[in-house]
Amino acid sequence: MSVLVVGSTALDSIKTPNAENPKLLGGSASHAAVAASFFAPTKLIGVVGKDFPKRYLKLYEKHGIDVEGLQVQEGKTFHWSGEYEVNMNNRRTLLTELGVFEHFTPHLPQKHKSTPYILLANIAPALQHHVLDQISKPRFVVADTMDLWLNIAMNDLVRLIKRVDLFVLNDSEAHQLTEEDNVYAALKKIHKLGPKYVIIKKGSHGSILSSPKGCFICPAYPLHKVVDPTGAGDSFVGGLIGHLAASRGNVDKNIRRAMVYGSVVASFCCEGFGLKSTTLVTQDKIEQRFKELVALTAF
Amino acid sequence: MSVLVVGSTALDSIKTPNAENPKLLGGSASHAAVAASFFAPTKLIGVVGKDFPKRYLKLYEKHGIDVEGLQVQEGKTFHWSGEYEVNMNNRRTLLTELGVFEHFTPHLPQKHKSTPYILLANIAPALQHHVLDQISKPRFVVADTMDLWLNIAMNDLVRLIKRVDLFVLNDSEAHQLTEEDNVYAALKKIHKLGPKYVIIKKGSHGSILSSPKGCFICPAYPLHKVVDPTGAGDSFVGGLIGHLAASRGNVDKNIRRAMVYGSVVASFCCEGFGLKSTTLVTQDKIEQRFKELVALTAF
Repeated sequence: MSVLVVGSTALDSIKTPNAENPKLLGGSASHAAVAASFFAPTKLIGVVGKDFPKRYLKLYEKHGIDVEGLQVQEGKTFHWSGEYEVNMNNRRTLLTELGVFEHFTPHLPQKHKSTPYILLANIAPALQHHVLDQISKPRFVVADTMDLWLNIAMNDLVRLIKRVDLFVLNDSEAHQLTEEDNVYAALKKIHKLGPKYVIIKKGSHGSILSSPKGCFICPAYPLHKVVDPTGAGDSFVGGLIGHLAASRGNVDKNIRRAMVYGSVVASFCCEGFGLKSTTLVTQDKIEQRFKELVALTAF
Repeated sequence: MSVLVVGSTALDSIKTPNAENPKLLGGSASHAAVAASFFAPTKLIGVVGKDFPKRYLKLYEKHGIDVEGLQVQEGKTFHWSGEYEVNMNNRRTLLTELGVFEHFTPHLPQKHKSTPYILLANIAPALQHHVLDQISKPRFVVADTMDLWLNIAMNDLVRLIKRVDLFVLNDSEAHQLTEEDNVYAALKKIHKLGPKYVIIKKGSHGSILSSPKGCFICPAYPLHKVVDPTGAGDSFVGGLIGHLAASRGNVDKNIRRAMVYGSVVASFCCEGFGLKSTTLVTQDKIEQRFKELVALTAF
């Protein structure tokens, strides 16, 4: 079955202690859609400016991503610039130029409105609501977020959390949302906001699912070197929903494996700047790392 | 087979945001020996002062721990006092009174010198060497450490690391020792110092083993509330060596399960002050949590 991904489509300028890369293809929807495309037919909803490089459109197409819902507007593409510290865990935003994103209203092409698997990747909660309003009877809705929306759009976000099946956030966001230091205590509080499934991402420490069938401790793939972690969380959730959409049977049966596949795609994402490493991934490479994770966690 | 544990035997005064507990039974060897005792016959090497409460000696004996190698000397027992922050991850030392520990020289009773499984729990590396010098042909030697020895006894520690089969340390110590932020890069560097097996402990994020048979990502048991994490790392390594000593077959076959059992004992340790929760553990409770960890990680 197919996946609809809405989120940011951006140009990312990323600085690390070792390198500087201007205007890479980025944004939550770009990372998530490419990740999902390895498993299921994927449709992208977003907006870019007239300056958006043709090679990036071709990259979406190379991955079979349906870009009918990608608006190309007069003006500049959303541009984010950030810098990572030596340990690659802490980053600071250097620049945010919203461009065409400032007045973006997602419109779904008619044929997109019955997509069964919906990923509301990181974007303003109001826009996530707006997309969800246009969908009729989705099978499974996933939403991701970021600290910015906890700071400036908490009410919208809390209303959104009620509407989704799976809510995904990272550990510091979970702490901010629940005021709980303990990840399991935080999961419990987030369930009370509505969603049946909650995942807290912990970067290189993996992720934790809380579901009706109990918790799952999902490993991160062991990387000896992280080149650029930007988009790893988006790749995780994209791979997850892509694999869910491609699997037979119910969510409880499939979600653990889907998370591990998400971890695998996220690991590739971290090995190159922007989407450079992710776009080179093959099914064989994904299956290889999945098998490695089986071996790395068996006892 | 039996386990010999050397390390600190102390009185711990522990302050958390919610409570204050003076002069609990503590020290690396106390935690590790009790943890090991759930799986294998355990001998303790350490020193206490004349002030050491009889009820604590009885507690060792309740767990069947051989205390023939525990010296009782004129003077005061080593006393450590520490305070935890709200998130229970950061702690600071308020007070360290070495007492009889200042001039401690571990002497092994003759019958202890052929013990097959040796745990050099956290203590000055010079004392760890001194114990190892008295052992003839051990089957498996494990050493743990702490940041203090990296700061003031690095040469002794590096010489010790060469002599052990398994070296265990936490993630911040691994960073300090190797100057690597990446845990897998750090593991690689530590192998170069000599040991065949290296484990990096990551607190609530579990631990990572690097071994001749590859890496293992070991989960932490999910706790919704941590009362006092003091001694959790010692309990982990104590449970690990106890389970190894009790298992048939070679280390590579058994070490992963031994780590998971170590995680289980460490989880009980965190649920009470000092050894209060650990001493109430039963085989049934251990097996229950082991099974839960199987279920929590299966995919």
